[in-house]
Amino acid sequence: MVYDLIVIGGGPAGYLGAERAARAGLKTLLVEKRFLGGVCLNEGCIPTKTMLYSAKIYDGAKHGEKYGVTAENLNLNHGMVIARKNKVVKMLVSGVRSQLKSCNVTVIESAGEIKGKAVEGYEVSASGETFVGKRLLIATGSEPLIPPIPGTKEGLEKGIVLTNREILGIQKVPESLVIIGGGVIGLEMASYFNSAGCKVTVIEMLDHIAGNTDKELSQILMKNYEKKGIVFNLNSKVVEIKDNTVFYEANGRKNSIEAEKILMSIGRKPVIQGLGLENIGVEIERGCVKTDETGKTNIPEVYAAGDVNGFSMLAHTAYREAEVCVNNMLCQKDMVRYDSIPSVIYTNPEVASVGETEESARQKGIDFEKSTVSMRFSGRYVAENEQGDGICKVLVDKKYGRIIGVHMIGSYSSEIIYGAALMVEAEMRVKDVKQLVFPHPTVSEIIREAIFKF
Amino acid sequence: MVYDLIVIGGGPAGYLGAERAARAGLKTLLVEKRFLGGVCLNEGCIPTKTMLYSAKIYDGAKHGEKYGVTAENLNLNHGMVIARKNKVVKMLVSGVRSQLKSCNVTVIESAGEIKGKAVEGYEVSASGETFVGKRLLIATGSEPLIPPIPGTKEGLEKGIVLTNREILGIQKVPESLVIIGGGVIGLEMASYFNSAGCKVTVIEMLDHIAGNTDKELSQILMKNYEKKGIVFNLNSKVVEIKDNTVFYEANGRKNSIEAEKILMSIGRKPVIQGLGLENIGVEIERGCVKTDETGKTNIPEVYAAGDVNGFSMLAHTAYREAEVCVNNMLCQKDMVRYDSIPSVIYTNPEVASVGETEESARQKGIDFEKSTVSMRFSGRYVAENEQGDGICKVLVDKKYGRIIGVHMIGSYSSEIIYGAALMVEAEMRVKDVKQLVFPHPTVSEIIREAIFKF
Repeated sequence: MVYDLIVIGGGPAGYLGAERAARAGLKTLLVEKRFLGGVCLNEGCIPTKTMLYSAKIYDGAKHGEKYGVTAENLNLNHGMVIARKNKVVKMLVSGVRSQLKSCNVTVIESAGEIKGKAVEGYEVSASGETFVGKRLLIATGSEPLIPPIPGTKEGLEKGIVLTNREILGIQKVPESLVIIGGGVIGLEMASYFNSAGCKVTVIEMLDHIAGNTDKELSQILMKNYEKKGIVFNLNSKVVEIKDNTVFYEANGRKNSIEAEKILMSIGRKPVIQGLGLENIGVEIERGCVKTDETGKTNIPEVYAAGDVNGFSMLAHTAYREAEVCVNNMLCQKDMVRYDSIPSVIYTNPEVASVGETEESARQKGIDFEKSTVSMRFSGRYVAENEQGDGICKVLVDKKYGRIIGVHMIGSYSSEIIYGAALMVEAEMRVKDVKQLVFPHPTVSEIIREAIFKF
Repeated sequence: MVYDLIVIGGGPAGYLGAERAARAGLKTLLVEKRFLGGVCLNEGCIPTKTMLYSAKIYDGAKHGEKYGVTAENLNLNHGMVIARKNKVVKMLVSGVRSQLKSCNVTVIESAGEIKGKAVEGYEVSASGETFVGKRLLIATGSEPLIPPIPGTKEGLEKGIVLTNREILGIQKVPESLVIIGGGVIGLEMASYFNSAGCKVTVIEMLDHIAGNTDKELSQILMKNYEKKGIVFNLNSKVVEIKDNTVFYEANGRKNSIEAEKILMSIGRKPVIQGLGLENIGVEIERGCVKTDETGKTNIPEVYAAGDVNGFSMLAHTAYREAEVCVNNMLCQKDMVRYDSIPSVIYTNPEVASVGETEESARQKGIDFEKSTVSMRFSGRYVAENEQGDGICKVLVDKKYGRIIGVHMIGSYSSEIIYGAALMVEAEMRVKDVKQLVFPHPTVSEIIREAIFKF
């Protein structure tokens, strides 16, 4: 069977790319080896947000007295949370399945392997059959990075060391949890398990948590979590795991910490093994499928989108990349603008960012100025946050007054940031944003507040 | 004492106008007869949002079992809610006061009256003194409309009939509450008192609630509130109030309903009495100070902003109008674009809108098409809303594909709508929005989802 497009991988890049291609008239086959919906839907974004929402309701009631709400015997039932998470995932996966069906994408739930190039296109074997695609979209995503730290493999086998995959399924909240890696995944899990009553310790190699997040924001986030009882060990390098004990070095000293469970969340790496990429000569660079901004690999009509290209490793980047790939397949020139992709950490408080940070702007030699305002300038924020310490920071380039970065920590940041991304994408200037009307009272107004400080 | 600008009224238009003017170098006096911060801060936006947030936490815990959160003896303590509301208002009013101080605005807390025109400017008396302003900004706001329905006056005197002012101060949740007028204020109060355990009935003259809101949204909102136990009597005209009984006519039949308290929320009217507007000949049209889009009245150097001009009666419109007035005072030509002002109803679910509705677009003869999507296409919405029935509707003009209206009902709508307002204001097209990256998983993505249906 010859398809116009064979998509390998059914995560955000894969299922969205397949859908867009099929709706544009391409006869499309999608091959997924594990779960339709990918990591995002099954073991990432969605499960974590479902769990974090339960934690949010629980925390709201727990600290409700400040707001006039009291309760007794308050309980976050982890088993119920996990059951509901599974239900939500199932529902959304079936939504993806029916979307694909409704636009006539053929779905094969099996591993796919590129075998070579034939006259009519690329040969892909899956489920014992061979299919031919005039075009390919590689969208195999990523998997947890497992470091060569002694004892890690054994810990994984014993079920003491977990990745994002296993931790989302544990039926009981552990007494204690050590999280190796204070990035987005580590912090979101720290947030949930802290709410759920677990003693959480985060070990991070850098001198700050939350990766490339603006430093000021990551410090505020850390302070908030320290208040809630999470312990952070920064500048700390894990050197060994032995049963329930994690050994690490900090400032030249050796330390150890014991925990019932250990979450390994130091990063993710593209899935490129077993796909047969070498059979058609797809170029790999530092473990990623190499593409340009149009999603093209070095091989004609072979595209890649999502985590596998190693650019941004975010589901929404994957969506956009997949669309760009499909547009270019259809000869509609398109490219991804990586400078206006927002990112969110769904902790409580939430952190959201888009564009340059002070650190990245300085590195690039951009001449910029910044405006930082407390979220307490927002009436709604004050109405909804006792002693909140959220901030909003806006960066503009000095030459044109264009908005090049927006960074927020505080309630609703996750839902507000897309508008800031729009400002960055559209290269809006301070004077343009000054004319916009933000509804009052909202937390979104804080952007306006920051803008008027310029 | 001669000022460059005298501002009459210390609400959103007044305090923001004074601040902007003073920062631009104008010697500014602000005269406020009641409370700095105006209705918005003292008796409107902020107090209601503070109360609604407490109700939200309470409702979250009350329905928490669906999300794995259980509690006993859950209680929304109205007295604590009111005490906290007063604290928040006090804090924000003192914030406004210190902002005005920090930019050297002179504040007189007393009624102000325009006496006439002298050589150097307009004379305003306040607190027994006379001040002269080269320019005036009328920002006296609005007050509740009290209809000439028999028994209303007596009811107000007895404390049975309340306006937005009194209801925010009652120390005890009434057993039952009849709300006359199902607009924004009525609905937000219905929402809070319903959560607080009060039997709420809304009487509305029109065949729908929520005023000019998109009809489909207002129906969804009504259904949600009916499920929670609020009773709506539409097409119903109140004809008399006698003690605790409200008499009304519906479909030619007379009915009556009894309640412990009655909220009168049929609308608001500009405050134009006792200001001496007639002393300098400011033109009044249908009870409003008449201005053009630059904020100018018929009298040179006399501007008006906020509810008093009768245009939109929203705090954020007032902000923008005040800025436009000040810009024009400073000879920086500016005007308000009334077609991209968002509006929000902070009920649960929230409703938010910007731009044309189907109804208004049809009335104007705009050739448009619409895309309506269920919020259940948003993974986060599904993760956070069991059986949610929210929707997002986007309207575009057929000729250019420009986004002319966005309407949402569902969680976070209040914080998402500013970005949609930006799209309408910037006259973005469907193809522009398709290129934007919305963070996943957020409810904001629903706009993208709707856009891709075009």
